Amino acid sequence: MMLLGRGLDARDNQTRQMQDAVSNVEKHFGELCQIFAGYVRKTARLRDKADLLVNEIYAYAATETPNLKVGLKNFADEFSRLQDYRQAEVDRLEAKVVEPLKCYGTIVKLKRDDLRATLTAKSREAKQLSQLEKTRQRNPSDLHVIAENELHRASLDATRTTRHLEETIDNFEKQKIRDIKNIFSEFITIEMLFHGKALEIYTAAYQNIQNIDENEDLEISRRMLRKDEEEDEEEDEDDEEDDEEDEFDATKEMMLTWIHSCLDCVTSLLNTPAHSLGIKGLRLFC
Amino acid sequence: MMLLGRGLDARDNQTRQMQDAVSNVEKHFGELCQIFAGYVRKTARLRDKADLLVNEIYAYAATETPNLKVGLKNFADEFSRLQDYRQAEVDRLEAKVVEPLKCYGTIVKLKRDDLRATLTAKSREAKQLSQLEKTRQRNPSDLHVIAENELHRASLDATRTTRHLEETIDNFEKQKIRDIKNIFSEFITIEMLFHGKALEIYTAAYQNIQNIDENEDLEISRRMLRKDEEEDEEEDEDDEEDDEEDEFDATKEMMLTWIHSCLDCVTSLLNTPAHSLGIKGLRLFC
Repeated sequence: MMLLGRGLDARDNQTRQMQDAVSNVEKHFGELCQIFAGYVRKTARLRDKADLLVNEIYAYAATETPNLKVGLKNFADEFSRLQDYRQAEVDRLEAKVVEPLKCYGTIVKLKRDDLRATLTAKSREAKQLSQLEKTRQRNPSDLHVIAENELHRASLDATRTTRHLEETIDNFEKQKIRDIKNIFSEFITIEMLFHGKALEIYTAAYQNIQNIDENEDLEISRRMLRKDEEEDEEEDEDDEEDDEEDEFDATKEMMLTWIHSCLDCVTSLLNTPAHSLGIKGLRLFC
Repeated sequence: MMLLGRGLDARDNQTRQMQDAVSNVEKHFGELCQIFAGYVRKTARLRDKADLLVNEIYAYAATETPNLKVGLKNFADEFSRLQDYRQAEVDRLEAKVVEPLKCYGTIVKLKRDDLRATLTAKSREAKQLSQLEKTRQRNPSDLHVIAENELHRASLDATRTTRHLEETIDNFEKQKIRDIKNIFSEFITIEMLFHGKALEIYTAAYQNIQNIDENEDLEISRRMLRKDEEEDEEEDEDDEEDDEEDEFDATKEMMLTWIHSCLDCVTSLLNTPAHSLGIKGLRLFC
């Protein structure tokens, strides 16, 4: 009796723990799903604004002197390319983070059905076992009526079901932790690929802006304004500025070459897990 | 007469060009300012969502088994740190991109006043010069009345004012191109610093997620469920999985070490321009 009482307590405890665990996952995965979906939406809104920026830069560039025009257009090209990667980021977060979290609703429901069925079986078997025990204790003389092996079989059935329940809970816990690890790893990998690409693209875009030869454009402006008047020469000042610019550009150039080689390294490493580490479907990014 | 006529045409042309240039800058800088401000606002909204995500991850982590709890909490810590950098990105974009573009309204207004004053002077001087020329042509005998040096002075004044007008336009063009280069360079640098930090932080965050020891947590769950029942051993399967995990982790570990060294390199290079290349105020980032 004592042993069966403890068994029932333990079962109640297991049931409560299991129900709490399932409800908790249902609640928090639901919330995470909603907030991640919001994060993805806001990323898409940011891309929309960036698209507007691209269009406005093209429109402005079209009105400008040749060097500024080319520099701004090239910047807009790069910035637009980055928005394609942002769109890929949005699509991938939707597919690899939001969707799996959304699916968890169904998974939790199936798990709950499985657990309920197992619990019902366990409860029925425990009652049967308890009944057999009681009968044996009340009528020890009727021992022949209740075959000893029947009692034994019922006891084995109850143990087997208990084990099945434990395994079901165990599998649920195992799948949950794996899914969390997987979803968060996907989130981080998708974000990292975007940030890596952003660094690479901005490096090129920076060069586009730095390459704008303002002195040549100023010369063109001057020539346009003075085409009916006499030319004069005030080139000394500009020449000095040219020297400063050259020095500035040389340092930048060196820095950017270094950053580029670093980025090549990061990029090739970011490519690695896509092939060899089983994070599939992210190679399009690279 | 011929020369003056051409001079007047050229002046009209200059005036029109100048007015077009100023209006064009006013229009496009205004539009760029608004769109950049929108981009910054959307970035701030993204940070808001990320903050919600941080809070929800903390809330969920608090309900979980020890390893999952610590892993998620560490991830949330890193992700929260990234949002601080996103806030810094927002503040800097506001200060270094949106504000300078907003200020352009005032700069354009002052330039327009300056140009208008110069144009008025030029027009007055041209009229005076034209008057003197006419007087001299109609009454060549009155040449003594119009001192030759007075005509010469008026002519010099007109040339000087023309040159001043050209310089004013020139300075406006020069400042415009420099400001554009500066504003876009700041934009790119601020974005790059954020993306660089993001790569660095996600690398650490990835490790936090990978480090979650699911087998230990499953053992804990099992012990909690079985504390009133007999222990059994089904460890073989888990051991096999451990081996797989170890291999996976080792490859990741190697990759992350490499990425880290690359990021150190990028970060130190990103720090460089703040000191030596005159891009001030961005060092707080690093």
